[in-house]
Amino acid sequence: MVTTPAFRRLPRAVREQQMLDAAVRVFSRHGYHGASMDEIAEKAGISKPMVYAYLGTKEELFVACLHREGTRMMEAIAGAAVPDLPADERLWRGLRAFFGFVGAHRDGWAVLYRQARAERAFADELTMMRARIVEVVAGMLDHALRAEGREVAETELEVVAYALVGASESLADWLADHPDADPEKTATRMMNVAWLGAAQLLHGHTWHPGMEGM
Amino acid sequence: MVTTPAFRRLPRAVREQQMLDAAVRVFSRHGYHGASMDEIAEKAGISKPMVYAYLGTKEELFVACLHREGTRMMEAIAGAAVPDLPADERLWRGLRAFFGFVGAHRDGWAVLYRQARAERAFADELTMMRARIVEVVAGMLDHALRAEGREVAETELEVVAYALVGASESLADWLADHPDADPEKTATRMMNVAWLGAAQLLHGHTWHPGMEGM
Repeated sequence: MVTTPAFRRLPRAVREQQMLDAAVRVFSRHGYHGASMDEIAEKAGISKPMVYAYLGTKEELFVACLHREGTRMMEAIAGAAVPDLPADERLWRGLRAFFGFVGAHRDGWAVLYRQARAERAFADELTMMRARIVEVVAGMLDHALRAEGREVAETELEVVAYALVGASESLADWLADHPDADPEKTATRMMNVAWLGAAQLLHGHTWHPGMEGM
Repeated sequence: MVTTPAFRRLPRAVREQQMLDAAVRVFSRHGYHGASMDEIAEKAGISKPMVYAYLGTKEELFVACLHREGTRMMEAIAGAAVPDLPADERLWRGLRAFFGFVGAHRDGWAVLYRQARAERAFADELTMMRARIVEVVAGMLDHALRAEGREVAETELEVVAYALVGASESLADWLADHPDADPEKTATRMMNVAWLGAAQLLHGHTWHPGMEGM
């Protein structure tokens, strides 16, 4: 394979990351519709035809940004919520990593996420990301239950995981809107809503209509 | 004001409701983009120019549908979660009304909601609806806390309300995707995640890192 000196200077993967960094900055500042490929190329220090050659159309580039930021977030959560910790500590660390990520990327990923949510074309990518997170959370709950010698139907785990993920998404949105709010404090609030209930469930306590003295 | 006999036959409000009924059916079946004003007019038994005259453009008609269905849902929740009940009973009845509404309108409101979420043009209407529900839930929590002689900062109430509303939205989405799932059972599941934790919070118990024996 023949490569020009300019191509050899940086490996393709590094160049792609630089383009994605530039694209995330430009999408965050101007929105999906307002972002121009010219500005993205300029910020990445590369010609516009090269951006198209590497990463495709603006739509494909946006999906690539969303996918990379989503993957980074998932890795931050998975790296924090390691399996050998007690269930509450795992959930707490996972939530702290999640809200920490959102808080550190208020102008970046949070904006990408909202734009993706508002555009029909990106709904599939978001649905897949959400499904991956729901699966991870359901797996954590299953692990914690089995450690207590209990087993719960897959549907029940899925439903609880959907509720936890929905609550976290909603609070992440709130956090993105409140620049002064502390991500760790937000994680603690979420923990207080989610864990105290989840812990009771793990111990086999459930709520039913007409229950007294809760 | 001069009116033709055809106009006098039905009061304007009744006619509008018939048009909205037809529009909800057509939007639900074909989606926002696929729906035609011709079909809506035909289903409502009225001419297309009259639909435009009464309810405006397709976009305005969609917002009117969303607003009516959202208001009906809010009324169902508020009517169920009456203030003189204990907090858990109120939350339970509110959740049951919410999931009951979604379950009964899987092909209607649930579809409208998803389309609204996927279209930038309707984001404001959804944000307003969500803000109203968050306010109602925060008010319920405040009421329950005051009944226990406790008071919590407005931000704390808002955050908990966002988490509960986000969790409920996420589960409603799950319910809409599962035609065999029982709305009342879904409400119980949500109650189990939300209330057991909320009840502890109401009694002043909180989670903190390093806590043992939960």
